Amino acid sequence: MRFTVLTLFPESFRMMEEYSVLGRALRSGLIELETVDIRQFATDRHGTADDYQFGGGPGMVMKPEPVFAAVESALARVPVEERSATPVALTSPQGDNLDQNLVNEFASAPGMIVICGHYAGVDERIRQGLITHEISIGDYVLTGGELAAMVIIDAISRFVPDVIGSAENVEHDSITSGLLQHPLYTRPAAFRGMGVPEVLTSGNHADIERWRRRQSLERTLRLRPDLLDTAPLTNSDRVFLASLGWSGDGD
Amino acid sequence: MRFTVLTLFPESFRMMEEYSVLGRALRSGLIELETVDIRQFATDRHGTADDYQFGGGPGMVMKPEPVFAAVESALARVPVEERSATPVALTSPQGDNLDQNLVNEFASAPGMIVICGHYAGVDERIRQGLITHEISIGDYVLTGGELAAMVIIDAISRFVPDVIGSAENVEHDSITSGLLQHPLYTRPAAFRGMGVPEVLTSGNHADIERWRRRQSLERTLRLRPDLLDTAPLTNSDRVFLASLGWSGDGD
Repeated sequence: MRFTVLTLFPESFRMMEEYSVLGRALRSGLIELETVDIRQFATDRHGTADDYQFGGGPGMVMKPEPVFAAVESALARVPVEERSATPVALTSPQGDNLDQNLVNEFASAPGMIVICGHYAGVDERIRQGLITHEISIGDYVLTGGELAAMVIIDAISRFVPDVIGSAENVEHDSITSGLLQHPLYTRPAAFRGMGVPEVLTSGNHADIERWRRRQSLERTLRLRPDLLDTAPLTNSDRVFLASLGWSGDGD
Repeated sequence: MRFTVLTLFPESFRMMEEYSVLGRALRSGLIELETVDIRQFATDRHGTADDYQFGGGPGMVMKPEPVFAAVESALARVPVEERSATPVALTSPQGDNLDQNLVNEFASAPGMIVICGHYAGVDERIRQGLITHEISIGDYVLTGGELAAMVIIDAISRFVPDVIGSAENVEHDSITSGLLQHPLYTRPAAFRGMGVPEVLTSGNHADIERWRRRQSLERTLRLRPDLLDTAPLTNSDRVFLASLGWSGDGD
């Protein structure tokens, strides 16, 4: 999968080349990351990418011409048959919240173009005529779209085949399983007066699985009860949750 | 404000030194960022920070000793009177979602310690005995906590006095105003057949303000109606929203 990022800070993305699982996937070619400097598509020799807004007011606006030209240049390098399936996403605090459904949708695309928003925002015609998705990574404001783009790329890359090794199995992640994770313990067994639940050292795998499942259910009920409405639950899960006071789906 | 980040990838954070508004704030000393390599607090000479989990199963777990030692070392450098007010946050997909309220809470602290989660997760005793907050930046899974920590630091830094200049005024941001932003336009006035709304070039500031407000209200109603329940609305805002079919608070 190929990511093309349009940014005013292309050098920011160099950190990804050395970053953990993502760096490994980039070096092995499982994913590709191209950064495009929006200023190189400016119409003047100063590389101007922003300008004052019509109607007045504080805050600069990203100009339309350099962004259109940079996206069109990036799309021209995408094979013709893949262009219509290539999302052109803008990072923006007013976009749709990134969630696992959106991550899965993007992960099935041949590639993706991400425009990093900046300043007060982008000229409205970029929204009207160029982008297919407007994405927010959460209900907070960032100084620019670069970290948001990195988060989007990281979350999607995990679903590209072979990026995640078996030991980092996506299926065992919290959220994708629909429940919060059960507690994890590693050595030492005793640490500052805090031990490890006996069941985990019992060697009884059925007991361990039951304990873990119940811990996941209990923690999810306590911290994120909304997840229980959509998580796949067995009858015995439901009986256990009811014993904790859960009154069923949609409550 | 001083951020201390505990990480397995300290070099990742170097990108922040050159990144936009944040880089400027770091260079001018308005915010400080210290990265601590968790491996340097490992109890063996190999810098082991992870281990297999008790009870078996895929996925490694972050060991408790290096994380406790690294946090205690970081807290020892915090003035005594500030220690209890210094949050110790863990990035985790199961944490509380970062939002503007949490950002404001952290921004009022003298400093903050952020532990970047990795592998399948952290030993439960880190959660029991060390951290004060567990933070998720959204409902998606990342390969590690580094990008989440950068997002947290970026969002908080905007609220540190003088980090954001007057032209980047926080008050004008979407989300913090409670509504989505109105459309923005900059030069050229005509671009690929798309123009600029006449009102914005009218010079009539009252008309411009009314148009912008109505655009914000209309866009918020269409894309994020949930925000209207808490946004500060005037009577004329309510009349306008009602004309668009809005049926009032809490619907």
